[in-house]
Amino acid sequence: MSIPTLPLPLVKEAVAVALKEDLGLAGDLTSDATIPAEATARAVLDCREDGVLAGMDLARETFAAIDPTVTFEALAGDGDRLRPGQDVARISGPARAVLMAERTALNFLCHLSGIATLTATYAAAIAHTKAKVACTRKTTPGLRLFEKHAVRCGGGSNHRYNLGDAILIKDNHIAICGGVAEAINAAKAHAGHLVKIEVEVDTLKQLDEALKAGPDVVMLDNMGLEDLREGVKRVGGRIPVEASGNVSLETIAAIAETGVDLISTSKITMSAPTLDLGLDIAIETKA
Amino acid sequence: MSIPTLPLPLVKEAVAVALKEDLGLAGDLTSDATIPAEATARAVLDCREDGVLAGMDLARETFAAIDPTVTFEALAGDGDRLRPGQDVARISGPARAVLMAERTALNFLCHLSGIATLTATYAAAIAHTKAKVACTRKTTPGLRLFEKHAVRCGGGSNHRYNLGDAILIKDNHIAICGGVAEAINAAKAHAGHLVKIEVEVDTLKQLDEALKAGPDVVMLDNMGLEDLREGVKRVGGRIPVEASGNVSLETIAAIAETGVDLISTSKITMSAPTLDLGLDIAIETKA
Amino acid sequence: MSIPTLPLPLVKEAVAVALKEDLGLAGDLTSDATIPAEATARAVLDCREDGVLAGMDLARETFAAIDPTVTFEALAGDGDRLRPGQDVARISGPARAVLMAERTALNFLCHLSGIATLTATYAAAIAHTKAKVACTRKTTPGLRLFEKHAVRCGGGSNHRYNLGDAILIKDNHIAICGGVAEAINAAKAHAGHLVKIEVEVDTLKQLDEALKAGPDVVMLDNMGLEDLREGVKRVGGRIPVEASGNVSLETIAAIAETGVDLISTSKITMSAPTLDLGLDIAIETKA
Amino acid sequence: MSIPTLPLPLVKEAVAVALKEDLGLAGDLTSDATIPAEATARAVLDCREDGVLAGMDLARETFAAIDPTVTFEALAGDGDRLRPGQDVARISGPARAVLMAERTALNFLCHLSGIATLTATYAAAIAHTKAKVACTRKTTPGLRLFEKHAVRCGGGSNHRYNLGDAILIKDNHIAICGGVAEAINAAKAHAGHLVKIEVEVDTLKQLDEALKAGPDVVMLDNMGLEDLREGVKRVGGRIPVEASGNVSLETIAAIAETGVDLISTSKITMSAPTLDLGLDIAIETKA
Amino acid sequence: MSIPTLPLPLVKEAVAVALKEDLGLAGDLTSDATIPAEATARAVLDCREDGVLAGMDLARETFAAIDPTVTFEALAGDGDRLRPGQDVARISGPARAVLMAERTALNFLCHLSGIATLTATYAAAIAHTKAKVACTRKTTPGLRLFEKHAVRCGGGSNHRYNLGDAILIKDNHIAICGGVAEAINAAKAHAGHLVKIEVEVDTLKQLDEALKAGPDVVMLDNMGLEDLREGVKRVGGRIPVEASGNVSLETIAAIAETGVDLISTSKITMSAPTLDLGLDIAIETKA
Amino acid sequence: MSIPTLPLPLVKEAVAVALKEDLGLAGDLTSDATIPAEATARAVLDCREDGVLAGMDLARETFAAIDPTVTFEALAGDGDRLRPGQDVARISGPARAVLMAERTALNFLCHLSGIATLTATYAAAIAHTKAKVACTRKTTPGLRLFEKHAVRCGGGSNHRYNLGDAILIKDNHIAICGGVAEAINAAKAHAGHLVKIEVEVDTLKQLDEALKAGPDVVMLDNMGLEDLREGVKRVGGRIPVEASGNVSLETIAAIAETGVDLISTSKITMSAPTLDLGLDIAIETKA
Repeated sequence: MSIPTLPLPLVKEAVAVALKEDLGLAGDLTSDATIPAEATARAVLDCREDGVLAGMDLARETFAAIDPTVTFEALAGDGDRLRPGQDVARISGPARAVLMAERTALNFLCHLSGIATLTATYAAAIAHTKAKVACTRKTTPGLRLFEKHAVRCGGGSNHRYNLGDAILIKDNHIAICGGVAEAINAAKAHAGHLVKIEVEVDTLKQLDEALKAGPDVVMLDNMGLEDLREGVKRVGGRIPVEASGNVSLETIAAIAETGVDLISTSKITMSAPTLDLGLDIAIETKA
Repeated sequence: MSIPTLPLPLVKEAVAVALKEDLGLAGDLTSDATIPAEATARAVLDCREDGVLAGMDLARETFAAIDPTVTFEALAGDGDRLRPGQDVARISGPARAVLMAERTALNFLCHLSGIATLTATYAAAIAHTKAKVACTRKTTPGLRLFEKHAVRCGGGSNHRYNLGDAILIKDNHIAICGGVAEAINAAKAHAGHLVKIEVEVDTLKQLDEALKAGPDVVMLDNMGLEDLREGVKRVGGRIPVEASGNVSLETIAAIAETGVDLISTSKITMSAPTLDLGLDIAIETKA
Repeated sequence: MSIPTLPLPLVKEAVAVALKEDLGLAGDLTSDATIPAEATARAVLDCREDGVLAGMDLARETFAAIDPTVTFEALAGDGDRLRPGQDVARISGPARAVLMAERTALNFLCHLSGIATLTATYAAAIAHTKAKVACTRKTTPGLRLFEKHAVRCGGGSNHRYNLGDAILIKDNHIAICGGVAEAINAAKAHAGHLVKIEVEVDTLKQLDEALKAGPDVVMLDNMGLEDLREGVKRVGGRIPVEASGNVSLETIAAIAETGVDLISTSKITMSAPTLDLGLDIAIETKA
Repeated sequence: MSIPTLPLPLVKEAVAVALKEDLGLAGDLTSDATIPAEATARAVLDCREDGVLAGMDLARETFAAIDPTVTFEALAGDGDRLRPGQDVARISGPARAVLMAERTALNFLCHLSGIATLTATYAAAIAHTKAKVACTRKTTPGLRLFEKHAVRCGGGSNHRYNLGDAILIKDNHIAICGGVAEAINAAKAHAGHLVKIEVEVDTLKQLDEALKAGPDVVMLDNMGLEDLREGVKRVGGRIPVEASGNVSLETIAAIAETGVDLISTSKITMSAPTLDLGLDIAIETKA
Repeated sequence: MSIPTLPLPLVKEAVAVALKEDLGLAGDLTSDATIPAEATARAVLDCREDGVLAGMDLARETFAAIDPTVTFEALAGDGDRLRPGQDVARISGPARAVLMAERTALNFLCHLSGIATLTATYAAAIAHTKAKVACTRKTTPGLRLFEKHAVRCGGGSNHRYNLGDAILIKDNHIAICGGVAEAINAAKAHAGHLVKIEVEVDTLKQLDEALKAGPDVVMLDNMGLEDLREGVKRVGGRIPVEASGNVSLETIAAIAETGVDLISTSKITMSAPTLDLGLDIAIETKA
Repeated sequence: MSIPTLPLPLVKEAVAVALKEDLGLAGDLTSDATIPAEATARAVLDCREDGVLAGMDLARETFAAIDPTVTFEALAGDGDRLRPGQDVARISGPARAVLMAERTALNFLCHLSGIATLTATYAAAIAHTKAKVACTRKTTPGLRLFEKHAVRCGGGSNHRYNLGDAILIKDNHIAICGGVAEAINAAKAHAGHLVKIEVEVDTLKQLDEALKAGPDVVMLDNMGLEDLREGVKRVGGRIPVEASGNVSLETIAAIAETGVDLISTSKITMSAPTLDLGLDIAIETKA
C-alpha cells in the first residue's frame, strides 16, 4: 500500500480556506509592525517527538500561496517515520511571508501527522496478524480527504470516502427492509457494478442470513471475541470481515487475533493528538 | 462569560462544505437502495457520556440544508453539561434526509463537544484560582471559528482569532527589532487604537524590559513555577499575565496557583477526543 | 433499480451556477421593459415528444432560487415516461420571476431528459437480454452528477463516478506494471476493502491472465462478437462482464446477446439530443 | 470573424469545477496503485475523425492545474479543421499527473469540438448564401461561454449571451404590452443606448407592425419559406432578419435561400455529438 | 425607464460577501456581551437628508441572511425621492440579529443611495434637454451590478455592463487597425447581430470617417462645445451621440444643450458621497 | 506607521471577483475584433493629479490573472505621494491581455488612491496636533480590507475591522444594560484578554461613569469643542480619546486641537472621489 498522490487542486482549495481563516482582513499586524519588508528568513521545519509524517503537500502549498518565491525543500515525505530532532524541510524567503504562513502550515502538519502517528501505533499493535486498522466516515468536517490520506501514511486502510462510493447496510436499513437478506438484495438490485456492498450485523444469526444473500464485505459490530472468532470461521475467507465497536489500543490486538481482516475505528481520525512539529526561524536584513 | 451567537451565514457555509464532502456525487446509495422515498424517521440525538455540548447550530443547519422540512427540536443548548443517556434533540422528517444528514451533524457535534468537554475539564482543574484556560491559533484548519466557540462553551477563554486582530510579539520579532522594548515600541507605533499588544518573554529579565515598554498583556513562556510566581509579582496586577508551555491536566493547577490570569494551550483544540453523541432512529413507512 | 434522491445542496449549487450564467449583471432587460412588476404568470411545463423525464429537482429549484414565492406543482417525476402533449408541471407566481427562470430550468430539463430518453432507447434494445447499458466518465464537465442520475432515470446503470471510487485498470497501467496479473495484484495491494477492481482486456489471452489474478469486474474492450461470447464463457458467471467499444443503437443488441452483463458507452451522456419540453405561459396584471 | 480570446480566469474556474468532479476525494486510485510516482509520460492528443477543434485553452489548463510542470505543446488551434489521425498536441510530464488530467481535458475537447464540428456542417450547408447559423441561450448549464466560443470556432454566430445583454421580445411580452409596437416602444424607453432590441414575430402582419416601431433586429419564427421570402422583402435590408424554428441540416439551405441573415438553432449547442479525440500515452520509469 | 428587478441570486451573493467581511470569525462581540439572547428590537430605517433611495433588496436580504425571522417592512422603494426624516423601512426581530446586520445593510444603502442621489442631481441639471446622464465601466470593483442599478434609480442611463456586451472602439483600437473606418469594419465583421458598435472620436474629421463606416453609436470625447454642436449636426439624428470628458455639475448643462443624446461620466459611480440613512433601534427584553 | 503587507490570497480573490464582473461571458469583444492576437503592448501607468498611491498589489495581480506573461514594473509604491504626470508603473505584454485588464486595474487604483489621497488631506489638516484621523466600519461592501489599507497609505489609522475584533459599546448596548458602567462591566466579563473595549458617550456625565468602569478607549460622540476639551481633561491621558460626529475638512483641525487622540469619520472611505490615474498604451504588431 503506497502513499497516494494528493490532487493539487484539492490541496490548493484547502490551503486557501485555512489561510483566509488565519489572515482575517488585516493581515499579520505583528510582522508588519516589527519585520522590515525586505528582511529574509531561513527556517527549518523539525519534528520534536517520534511520529509519522503527513501533510507535506499542504505545508508546501501554504508557503507558496502566500508568496511563490518562498522555497520549500522537503527532507522527508508523507509516510516517513520521524525521530525527535529530525529536520523535515528547509524553507527560505521573505521573512514576512514565512511568518504569515507558519501557523497554517503547522496546523495542517501537526494535525495530519498526529493522525498518521496514532494510526501507526494501532497498526503496530496488530502487525503480528493479518488485520488492518481502518478509518470511518467519522472525520473532522472539511478535512476528510486529508485525514484519510494521513491514515494511509500511518499504514491504515480506508473505508468509504462518502455516502456514494459504497453501500453500508446498517440496522435501520435492515429494519425497514424487513431483514438482512432483504436489505442486501435491495442493495444488489440498486447498486452499480463497481459498488461494493457491506452489511453490518450484530449477531451470528444475522451473519448467517447475510452470508446467504452474498454481500461483498461483512461488518461484525460490537461482538465479543468469541463471536468474532466464530464469525470469521463461518465466513471462511470468502469475503473480508470487518470488526467494529469497542476498539482501543488495549483491545485491538485481541480483536485482530480473532482472524478478522479489518478493524475500523473513529479514534484514529477524530481523537488523535497532534504531533509536535515546529519551525526554527532565523531572520536577517540585508546589511 | 455567556455563550456567543454563531453568525448564521458562517454556520451555513461550514455545513455546505462538510455536506459536499460526505455526499460525493452519487448521494446516499444505501438509503436510496433500501429506504422508500416516502418513509419517515423519528430520531433522538442523545449523549452517551459526561460532557459539555457544543455545535447545536451546526447540527440543526445540517438537517435543514438537506431538507428544510426536517424538524429539529433542541432539548439542550451549547454550553450545557450533559449526562450519559441525556436526550439532546428530537429530529423528524423524511427518512432518507435524516440519514443523509446524520453523520455530518454528528461529526460537528462530537468534535466540538469534545473540545468543550476537555476545556471544561481543564477549567475545573483551576476553578479554585482566578486563572482561565485559553485556546490559541493552533486549531484544525477550516474550523477555527467553531473550535473557539466550543472553548467558550467549555468555560475557556479565547486568544487571537487570527493574525490581524491583535499583536503577539515573539522571539523572532524581538530578535529582528533588537530587543523586547524595541519590538513593543514598534508595535505601538504601528497598531491601531483598538489593537492590543502582547509580548512573549522567556526570562524575568525580558519581562522587566517588557514592562518598561508597556504592553497590554505579557506571556511568560516555558517558565518554571518559581519564575512564574516572581513574574506575576513583578507585573503587580497592572496587566494580564498569560502562561504558556508545558500545560497539561497534570500541570495546570500548579501553574494557575502562581497567580497568572491565563493559561493557554493547544491541547484543548487540536488534541481533544470526541464526545460520544449518537442518533437513535426509528423509520416507518405510511401503512 | 429505483430513482436515487438528488442531494439538495448539490442541486442548489448547480442551479446557482447556471442562473448566474443566464442573468449576467443586468438581469432580464426584456421583462423589466415590458412586464409590470406586479404581473403574475401561470405556466404549464409540457413535453412535446415521447421521452423520459429527468431533472425535475433542478427545475423546481431554479424557480425557487429566483423567487421563493413561485409555486411549482409537479405532475410527473424523474424516470416517468412522457407522451407528446403531456403536462409535466404547473408553475405560477410573479411574471418577471417565471420568465427569468424559464430558460435555465428548461436547459436542465431538456438536456437531462434527452439523456434519460436516449438511455431508455438503448435499454429497450437490449431488454430481451440480461445486459444493462451503462454510462462512463465521459460526461459534460460540471454535470456528471446529474447526467449519471439521468442515465438511471432512463433505466441505465452507472459506472465509476470519479477516479477515486473504483479502480479501472487500462492498457497503460498494465504496460507499466509488466502484465495484467501484475497490475491487478498491485491494485489489490493498494485498494481499500470497499473498492472494486475492474480490468480492461483486449484479448482472450489477457482475459485468462486477468481471471487468474481475480478482479471484481472485467471489461472486454473492442472485441468482436465471437470473442465476447467466448469471453463470457470463460468468465463463467463468477464476476460481471462489461463490454465496451463500437457500441451503437445498431450494434448493442448483438453485443448484449453474447451474454455480457454490462455495455458501456459515452453516447448516452455526451451525444444525446435534447428532449423537447417547453413552458406555456399566460401573464396577467391585476385589473 | 476571428476566434475570440477566452479569458484565462474563466478558463481556470471551469477547469477547477470539472476537475473536482473527476477527482472526488480519493484522487486517482488506479494510478496510485499501478504507476510509480516517479514515472513519466509522453502523450499525443490526436483526432480520430474529421472535425473542427475547440477547447484547447481548457485542455491546456486542465493539465497545468494538476501539475504545472506538465508541458503542453499545441499543434493545432481552436477553429482549425482536423483530419482523422491528425496530431493536435504533445503532452509530457509526470505520468500520474497526465493520467489524472486526461479524461477531464478530453471531455472538454470532445464536447466543444463536437459543437464546432456540427456548426461547421450547418455553416457549410448555407455557404452559398449570405446567411449565418447562430446559437441561442439553449446551452448546457455551466458551459455557455465555451459553447458559444465553439460555435464561433465552427464558423457560426452568437446570439445573446444572457438575459441582460440584449432585448428579445417574444409572444408573452407582446401580449402583456397589448401589441408588437407597444412592446417595442416599451423596450426602447427602457433600454440603454448600447442595447439592441430584437422582436420575434409569427406573421407578416406582426412584422409590418414591428417594422413601423423600428426594432434593431427581427426574428421570423416558425414561418414557411414563402412567408420568410416575403418577410425578407418587406424588411428590405434595413435591419438583420433572423429565422428560427424547424431548423435542421435538411431544411437550413432552403431557409437560407429565402434571404434571411441569420438562422438560429439550439441543435448546434445542445444536441451535437462529441468529436472523437483521444490521448496516446507512453509511460516510462527512469531506469 | 422603470426600475429594473435585481435578480435574487446576485443579491444574495453580494450580501454573503459583505456579511463575511463584517462578521469576521468571532461574530458580534459587543452584542454577545451586552444584549441578552432573547431581547428583541424594533427599528426604523430613516433618511436624514434629501436624496434618492437605492439598494432596498440588499438591505432586506442582509437582515434575512442573519436571521430569517427578522421582518423588514419597506415604506419606500428604489428610485423614490426621500426627504429628511422620512421613514424608509420598519425592521423587527431578535435584537442581536438586527444589530449584527445593521452596518452591512446601511453600507449598501448609503453607498447606492448616494449614487442614485448624485445621478438625480446630474439628471436634474439637464432635464430641460433631451440628454441623459450615463455611467461607464468605472465602477467600484465587485459592485458594478448594483451601482448601475443605482444610476437607473437616479434617472440615469447605463452604458456597457462589461467588455462582452457591446463594442466600444477607442484610440488604441483605431491606431492598430489603421483608421476609424477600418476599426469599425473590423468590429462589424466580428460582432454578432445583437451587439452594438460604438466608436469614440476626438475630432470632427474622425467623426466624418466614422459616419461613413456606420457605427451604432458615436462618442465625442473631450470636444469643446462648438465641436459638439457641429458633431451633433453632422450626425443628424441618425444614431445616438454620446459626449464624454470634462463632465461635471458645472459643465453638464452646457454640454447637454449642444444636442447630444448621452453624457457619460464616472463621477456618478465612483465619486458619489454617501446618502445619510440610519437605523433608530429600540431594544426590549421580555419582562 | 509603515504600510502593511496585503496578503496575496486576499488580493487574488478580490481581483478574481472584479475581473469576472468586467469580462462577462464573451470576453473583450472590441479587442478580439480589432487587435491581432499576436500584437504586443507597452503601457505606462501614470498619475494625472496630486495624490497618494494605494492598490499597487491589486493592479499587478489584475494583469497577472489575465496573462502571467505580462510584466509589471512598479515605479512607485503604496503610500507614495504622486505628482501630476508622474509614472507609476510600466506594463508590457500581449496587447489583448493588457487591454482586458486595464479597466479593472484602474478601478482598483483610482478608488483606493482616492481614499489614500483624501485621508492624507485630512491628516495634513491636523498634522500640527497629536491626533490621527481614523476610518470606521462604514466601508464599501466587499472592499473593507483594501479601503482600510488605503487609509493607512494616506497616513490615517484603522478602527475595528469587523464586529469581532474589538468591542464598541454604543447607546443601544448601554440602554439595555441599564447604564454605561453596567455595559462596560458586561463587556469586561465577556471579552477575551486580547480584545479592547471602547465605549461611546454623548455627555460628560456619561464619560465620568465610563471612566470609573475603566474602558480601554473612549469615544466622545457629537460633542461640542468645549465638551471635547473638558472630556480630554477628565480622561487625563490614561486612555485614548476618540472624537466622532460632524467631522469634515472644515471642522477637523478645531476638533484635533481639543487634544483628542483620534478623530474617526466615514468620509475618507465611503465619500472619497477617485484619483485620476490612467494607462498610456502603445500597441505594435510584429512586422
